Formats: sequence, C-alpha cells, structure tokens
Amino acid sequence: MNNIHGIAAASGIAIAKAFRLEAAHLDIRKAEGKDPEAEIQKFESALEQSRADLEALKERTRVQLGDEKAEIFESHLLVLGDPELIDPVKEKIRSERINAEWALQEVAAGFIAMFENMKSAYLRERAADMRDVTKRVQSYMLGVKFVNLTAIDEEVVLIAEDLTPSDTAQLNRQFVKGFATNIGGRTSHSAIMARSLEIPAVVGTKNVLEVVQDGDLVILDGLTGQVIVKPEPAVVEEYREKQAQYEAQRAEWAKLRSEPSVTADGHHVELAANIGTPNDVAGVIDNGGEAVGLYRTEFLYMGRDKLPTEKEQFNAYKAVLEKMEGKPVVVRTLDIGGDKELPYLDLPKEMNPFLGFRAVRLCLEQQDLFRTQLRALLRASVYGNLRIMFPMIATLDEFREAKAILLEEKAKLIEEQIPVSDSIQLGIMVEIPSTAVMADQFAKEVDFFSIGTNDLIQYTMAADRMNERVSYLYQPYNPAILRLVQMVIDAAHKEGKWTGMCGEMAGDATAIPLLIGLGLDEFSMSASSILPARSQISKLSLAEMKKLAAEALQQRTAADVVALVKRATEDQVN
Amino acid sequence: MNNIHGIAAASGIAIAKAFRLEAAHLDIRKAEGKDPEAEIQKFESALEQSRADLEALKERTRVQLGDEKAEIFESHLLVLGDPELIDPVKEKIRSERINAEWALQEVAAGFIAMFENMKSAYLRERAADMRDVTKRVQSYMLGVKFVNLTAIDEEVVLIAEDLTPSDTAQLNRQFVKGFATNIGGRTSHSAIMARSLEIPAVVGTKNVLEVVQDGDLVILDGLTGQVIVKPEPAVVEEYREKQAQYEAQRAEWAKLRSEPSVTADGHHVELAANIGTPNDVAGVIDNGGEAVGLYRTEFLYMGRDKLPTEKEQFNAYKAVLEKMEGKPVVVRTLDIGGDKELPYLDLPKEMNPFLGFRAVRLCLEQQDLFRTQLRALLRASVYGNLRIMFPMIATLDEFREAKAILLEEKAKLIEEQIPVSDSIQLGIMVEIPSTAVMADQFAKEVDFFSIGTNDLIQYTMAADRMNERVSYLYQPYNPAILRLVQMVIDAAHKEGKWTGMCGEMAGDATAIPLLIGLGLDEFSMSASSILPARSQISKLSLAEMKKLAAEALQQRTAADVVALVKRATEDQVN
Repeated sequence: MNNIHGIAAASGIAIAKAFRLEAAHLDIRKAEGKDPEAEIQKFESALEQSRADLEALKERTRVQLGDEKAEIFESHLLVLGDPELIDPVKEKIRSERINAEWALQEVAAGFIAMFENMKSAYLRERAADMRDVTKRVQSYMLGVKFVNLTAIDEEVVLIAEDLTPSDTAQLNRQFVKGFATNIGGRTSHSAIMARSLEIPAVVGTKNVLEVVQDGDLVILDGLTGQVIVKPEPAVVEEYREKQAQYEAQRAEWAKLRSEPSVTADGHHVELAANIGTPNDVAGVIDNGGEAVGLYRTEFLYMGRDKLPTEKEQFNAYKAVLEKMEGKPVVVRTLDIGGDKELPYLDLPKEMNPFLGFRAVRLCLEQQDLFRTQLRALLRASVYGNLRIMFPMIATLDEFREAKAILLEEKAKLIEEQIPVSDSIQLGIMVEIPSTAVMADQFAKEVDFFSIGTNDLIQYTMAADRMNERVSYLYQPYNPAILRLVQMVIDAAHKEGKWTGMCGEMAGDATAIPLLIGLGLDEFSMSASSILPARSQISKLSLAEMKKLAAEALQQRTAADVVALVKRATEDQVN
Repeated sequence: MNNIHGIAAASGIAIAKAFRLEAAHLDIRKAEGKDPEAEIQKFESALEQSRADLEALKERTRVQLGDEKAEIFESHLLVLGDPELIDPVKEKIRSERINAEWALQEVAAGFIAMFENMKSAYLRERAADMRDVTKRVQSYMLGVKFVNLTAIDEEVVLIAEDLTPSDTAQLNRQFVKGFATNIGGRTSHSAIMARSLEIPAVVGTKNVLEVVQDGDLVILDGLTGQVIVKPEPAVVEEYREKQAQYEAQRAEWAKLRSEPSVTADGHHVELAANIGTPNDVAGVIDNGGEAVGLYRTEFLYMGRDKLPTEKEQFNAYKAVLEKMEGKPVVVRTLDIGGDKELPYLDLPKEMNPFLGFRAVRLCLEQQDLFRTQLRALLRASVYGNLRIMFPMIATLDEFREAKAILLEEKAKLIEEQIPVSDSIQLGIMVEIPSTAVMADQFAKEVDFFSIGTNDLIQYTMAADRMNERVSYLYQPYNPAILRLVQMVIDAAHKEGKWTGMCGEMAGDATAIPLLIGLGLDEFSMSASSILPARSQISKLSLAEMKKLAAEALQQRTAADVVALVKRATEDQVN
C-alpha cells in the first residue's frame, strides 16, 4: 500500500484499476534511399486516418461539451489540411528520397520553431497544435498506437503526467471514474474540466505516474487529495463506505435542486453560478442555480483572430438570458488584459500586467469595442433579466464614464426604434481596494456590487496570486479581507442595494459561514458547488453567524480566523 | 515668444541664454592602409586625454556630491584601462592596418552587444558605460569637441534631450541656472539631481530641444513647468519680479532653519528627511531637518557585485547616527526586488514584480542577508537614536517573524558582550492596503508606523505607478487613500504610538493641510522641501485643518478633494 498526496481538484471518490496515460515514444529516424511514391502514399494514408480520428473527436466533444470545447479539434483539422505543411513534406520526400516520418519531422520542426518565436500568445499556441498533429500522423506511419482515450472500455482511474485539452475532451465518464496527475493546480485546465464533468480528480501529486503501475488498484479521494495505491482490503472497504456516504450526500443535495437557499433561522440568500458560455447554462439549471452571478464574456473574444461582431455577441447574450427564463443574469463587460491576452488587440507588454491597462480601463479608451458590447447587451436585454457589471472599477469617475457611454448607446437604440429593457440593473465588481474603501459613496450611484475576491485579495495583500513565492500571502481569511467585505456589504445595505460575491471564496465551505454572518446577499460559484452550499447554509443560523463574523473581524491573523470558524462550526455539529 | 509646457521638476526661476546640449555627431568611417604605429599613438594619446578628463570629473563630483555619485566615473576609468578592450584594438590596427577610431568602434561594438544581451541589469548597464567611454575616446581621436559641461563659463539655461548621470554630475551651479529636457518625469534621475543641486528644472517637455536655439533668451519656471522662449521684455520683467519674490521666500524659509515645526495654533509636528547615504545627512542638517524619517539602505547593496559586509554596513549606519547627533534616524531594512534588482542575488524573473518576492518577503527567506543587516544596525544603535522599520509588511505574522529574528540577533550580541541600545523603536512601513485596514491590530505590537504612499497608492488603486497608460489612476487625493491614512493614524494614537509618512505625498503642499488635519505626527520628505513645509505649516490652523480633513474624507473623487483643499487654502490666504 502506498499513499500519495496531491491537490483535491474535483470531489468524489473513485476505486478502480489504474490506466497509465503515457505519451507514446516515437522513434523517428532518418532513412535514405526510399521509394518516394510509397512514402507519399504512407503519408497520405496517415493523414486520412488522423483526419477521421479528429472528426470523430470533434463531433463527440461537440455533443458532450458544446461547440466551444470542440474548437480545438477544428484547429487540428486545419493544420492537417494545410498545403503549406503538406506540400513541402512531399517535395522533401521526392527530392531527398527520405522516409515520410522524417520529412514531416523536419518540416513541422521549422513551423514549430517559427510559431514558438512569435510575439503573439495566440500564434505561440499554434506550435502546440502543430506538435500534437505531427505526433498523431507519425504514430500512424510508424504503426504505434496513438493513445486513444475514447477506446477505454472498462472502469479505470486515469494516471498521467498532465491532461491536455484534447485529452480531457475525450474522457468518457462511463469508464473514466477519476484521474490523478503529476502536475497542475486547483485552477488548471484539467481541474476545471474535472469539476465540470463531475469526475473526481487529484492533481499536482508530483510523482503519481512514477509510482503507479498499469492495472494497480487505486483509490482516488477527490475530497482530500489522497491517492492510495494497492490498498489493503480493509482500506478498500472503508473507502467503499465513504463513497456510499458521498453518493448519499449527493442524493440529498439533489433533493435541494428546486429548494430556496435559506438558513436554519429563515434568512434567504441567492445562490448563483459563474459561467463562461451559453453552453454552461444547462449545468446551472441542473444544479439548481437561482441566477447567473457572473457571465464572463471574455470567452467570446478568445481563441479567434478578430473581435466578435455585435450580432455574434447579441446571439450569445440572448441565448443565456432565454435559457435562464427570467432569472437574473449578471453579465460582466470585457475583462481582458492582465493575464488574459487578446492577440489581435496588440496591447503593449507591461512590467506589471496585473496593475496595468485592463478591463474597464481598456474599454474606456477603446470605446468602439466597448460600445459594440454594450449595444449587443442592450439589444439582448428584452429577452430576460439582464444586469450589467463593469470590472476593475477603481474610481467613481470610471463608473460615471462607463455609465454615460451605456446611456448614450441606449438612447441611440431607442432612436433606432430597437426595444431595450427599462429595468437593467447596473453594478460594478469590487476587486480593487480603493473601491471597497469608498463603497459608501459608490453605493449612492450603482445598483449593486459583486465582490471579486480573486483580485481583491491579491491587491489588498500586494501578492500576485500566480506567483508561488508569495502565495502564502494570498489569504482569503486575512481579517483585512473580511473587513473590506463588510464595508462593501454594509455600504450597499445602507442605500438599499445588494452585494454579491463572484470570486473563489463565495463557494468555499470555510468562507460561507462568515459571509452569511457578514450579510452577503448573493453567492456566485461554480455550478457544482451550489447544492453543497445550499445544504450547508440550511444548517447555519444567521444569528450565530453574525456573532461569528463580528468575532472574526477582531482577529489578528488569517490562521486565527480559520481556527475560530473551525471551532464554531464544530460546536454547531456537536 | 513661445511657450513650452513640461513637468515642474525642481523649484525656482531661471532667466538666461539657452545652451543646447547636443550629442556631438561623430562620423566614424573605416580607412585602410594606415600606418599602425601612428594610429596606435593617436589611440594612446586619446586614452590619456580621456583619463585626465575623467579623473578631473571624478574629483570634482566627489567634492561637490560625495563618493557615491563619483563612482560612475570610477566605472568609466576602469573601462578605459581594461586590457580586454585596449589590446584587441591595437591588434586590429596592426593586423588590418585600419584607422584607430574604426578599430575601437568594432571592438567596443562587440562588447556592447554582449553586455546588452546579459540577463543581469547590472551588466546591461556596463553597455552604457562602454558606449560613453568609446565616444569620449573617439572624440579626441577625431578632434571633435566632446561636450564638456564643466567648461560652461557664463550663465545659461541648459536645453537637452535628457541628462545622463555623467551630465548632471558635471553641472556647475554657478553658471548653469536651470535646465529643461525633452524626456523624463518628476522622479527621473535628472529631476532628483536637480532638486538635490537646487537648480530649477523642467522635464518631459517633449520638444524643447527642437524649439530652442543656442543663445535664445529663455525663462524657465520650475514652479509651474513653463519654459518661455524669446520672451517679450515685459514678460522678462514680470519673471524677474517672480524670481525676486521666490528668492525672498527662500530667504524667509532659511530663517526657519532652527525653528520648530508648529501650526499657527501651536500644534507641533516633526519634519524629517529621506536619505540614501551618509553623505545626504549634510543636506538634512542644512535644511533644518528634525530627524531622518527614512534611510533607504538599498544604496549600500547596489552598484556592486556582492553583498555588503556587516562591517561596511555598520560603518554607514554609525556615520548617519553620529552625524544626526541624537536626533531620530529611522532605518528601513533592505527593500529590494520589484523595480529594484540586485544582480548578485540572482532573483527569478516575475510576471508582476510589484506584487512579488521583495523587501521583507525576501529577507524572511534569505535570512543570512537579513541577519547581517540587523546585526550591523544593532551594533550601530549605541551611536545615536536608532529606529528600525520593516518594509512591505502585509500580515502580523511577517512582523512577528522579523521581530523574532531581530531579538535573536540582539541576544547573540549581548552574549558576545557587544553593546546594544535598549531603546530602539521598532516599526513598519504601511504601504500595503491590508496593513492599513488592520492598523488597529498592528498598533498593539509595533512602536510606530510610517506610511509609504508611493506603494500604498499603487496597490490601493491597482495601478502600476510606472505605467503611463494607467497613471491617471495614481491618485494621492483619492478619498480612499485619505481614509486609509486616517485609519492608520487613528489606530496608532489609540495605542499611544506615532505615525509618520515617507512617501512623495508628505512633502506636497496640497497634501500637507490634509495630513495636518488627519493628525500625522511625522512628515519625511526630500531635505529641500523641509523649510517650505515648515513655513506652510506655521500658517495653518490645526482646528481648521481637522474640519477640512473630515470634509475631504466624505468627498467622492480625487478632483473633489483637490478642489476642496484649494478653496480652503485660498480662503485662508484671503
């Protein structure tokens, strides 16, 4: 028996045989004096087989996960059909009489090197596509089996160095009961996918691929981040019980799907979901979300080579509003810059991008882009309950300017006799310390606040949340953060406005008691966290949590706060 | 007549003829078939003349500005004597029979390219030295006059694209009455030098070098940032009067040199100075500083290739303490990282260095470095009134850890029977929002606060102060900043502690009325701002300023605050 610890990335317990996903080793060597026509035929046949693979993967992904996720295979297909890649390979085979694998290797290496040296992140990503496709075609030529995750037809726990987007898109929930990887964190691509597929996962174990052999029995605990290799029978028994308990709990949670979110003493809050695309709405409804608390519109702008049109945006916003059937939908206007680049905007490199020209700062300067988005939103507003929210607001001047632009576009649409809703709430993200400190003044002018804890914490603590050397300072439970949250909520309530939270913290079981106590009105989280949160809240007393929160605000350190919450919630269980 | 606007960089008014500082154009071409011995002699003679120039410049700078500032010429002299540069030039002259200028050009270009590609900022700077020295030597070989600022012997206003450290070191206050440059900002090197030399200066005009001709009469107003070219006689007259008023005011300020800093209604505050080296203490005393409010110890670590020893540091700290003769000296422990690199520490590149591994974060990890500095400080403590301050404190845990290390080193010294003062105050910089928000808890454990506004503003507004695209958000008068300042001051007073401020804001004439009203105890600024500040404070009423500050805290925008202060101070003048 062997215990490996990693980062709990997606809840649930899996018990199954290990399936090691190893990158197939391709031994590509140069061979001369080959028959060009035979080599070209081998090349073309490999291209054909790869194309069939990719078409199937694309269709499967589209059905299971939606158009957006399927697009990666569209990129791969484009590479596969590109004459700028294919023709030079054939020429090389003819002129040098070499083997096709080597000819492809050399031509592709040239493109990969070129893409990798591009300034634009978008073009640099093309290098990864090229590498992935080259490997697939070479596997067919060498007769090496290219690992096909869709072919798994017995229950397994997948063990890998890491999972690429193209790997996760192929996971079949029926057979892949969980996965564990060497690298990655809670917010890495594979972790996010695991939560959205509801497959238990442990990431960042550092060595699971080295320790586990194919066929080893493995217990994967996505709640604690443990991976137990070749467990004793008694341990298997224990985990089967835990698994049953977890399933029972999930069943209980499922009963809360259509229930309101109410504390034990009758205080109602709203549990909403964060989404990125219209496809995500199905998950919100499945998990009993009462609203969309954050619709991140960046995805509309990413993975493409020009800005989305007003029409494209209108369609997306309308789809979300219609699918939510009158429930509130908070749409955040474009939050690009910082760690999120848009290659076609050609923004200058900055020394400190997190403190730079991003989000509303960029929208107020590049107004064409901003006005297009606002027009699309205003036109969509008649199809549901739309709320618009500006990100990265640091001063009242910025809010006033953004609002003025919105009103101008609204007036133009009315002039053009295009219907626009008259009850759109207009709010801001509170993610910059100045805005939290000035919340009393903002509350007189905005309709609502939504606290973005990810950024608010990093600015308040002056610690880049992506920088491992200072990650110990990324402290959601630092009393300073709780005090800022309190300032915002109190300021909103004083003016009869509401406050939501759409950062990671809103769905965290340790934070929820404090946030209830501080009076937070709306909690927006990943859809899969809604039912556990509703269950947790139903057992809390508002009166008790108010006392807890007041005490937390007087603590000196984050550790003091966590200890306090732990004591209080344990008391409640006993 | 022509009006040019720039950034007011150093106060005062200059009226004199323009002297354009243009980089001499050196026409370096290859000539073949030369007599090697004649070329080598030309080269050696140019080296000799350059060496004499640089020795003279170095001595002059040392006398006028101290050892530190003279070091740049030491670097130049090292380049000039480097056989790795000299020998290849001579070899090239001999083997290719080419002219010496060209041989030097080619050899130097190789070094410059190499240095410029170095990862270390320190080595990259060597490229600039090499370029500067090469040009000087080539000027002598070509018989082109290398602009020698020390040779100016009539009153002029210097007009330039920019001034390099080697330019500013040569400025002779007797003749150079002021300068205006195309580029630069209030905190650029040339602006800081102008203030320390007390020469009026306007920087960042964008086009002054294009508009002004040699010999044009120029009025330079370092108070407003205006440069008037070829003024009408009436305007000259007007500015002569302004100049006289300014001089009269300076004379009045000089009388306040030994006076205490007291408001019109008898409230005493402390006016202190920010310094970088022991040489700066003379300026503090000249300007009537009551303390050193911030001794930036970084300079001890910069411009060298290894850490300073305990002994070197001890000598510097002891010198400052002794020269201040018992007046308080607040020493900030090493604040490196962010925009300040130390090549020999080999820190990893960070995505957002301002939110990264710097200052106390680094000291707590690289404890050897920290302990050496603390030991040097403790040993120096018996020579004056030492206060120690930790920068970039974000949590109480960090302060506790830093304090524990200090106490450990103190215990060791006592064990070693080395005398240590028993009355060292121990404080922190408040420059991270979390610390301002938690000031009430910090105040129970620290002896004092010093608010670092430069960083506090950039984190509170989430705007990099070096990034021009978001510089509009760097708002010292945003009510959010004033509220944080108030929280810190009130928290300190409640526990009987004191609060200082050592950012740019402390010396700003618009900020001073507000800071007096908020109850700030100590103002630390550049030495040259102390007397004007003392004069301004003597005319303010604490009671009135308290009302003003209370009103400012309730404003909605930075513009509202500035307008309020303007109205209030105009009222007071009338």
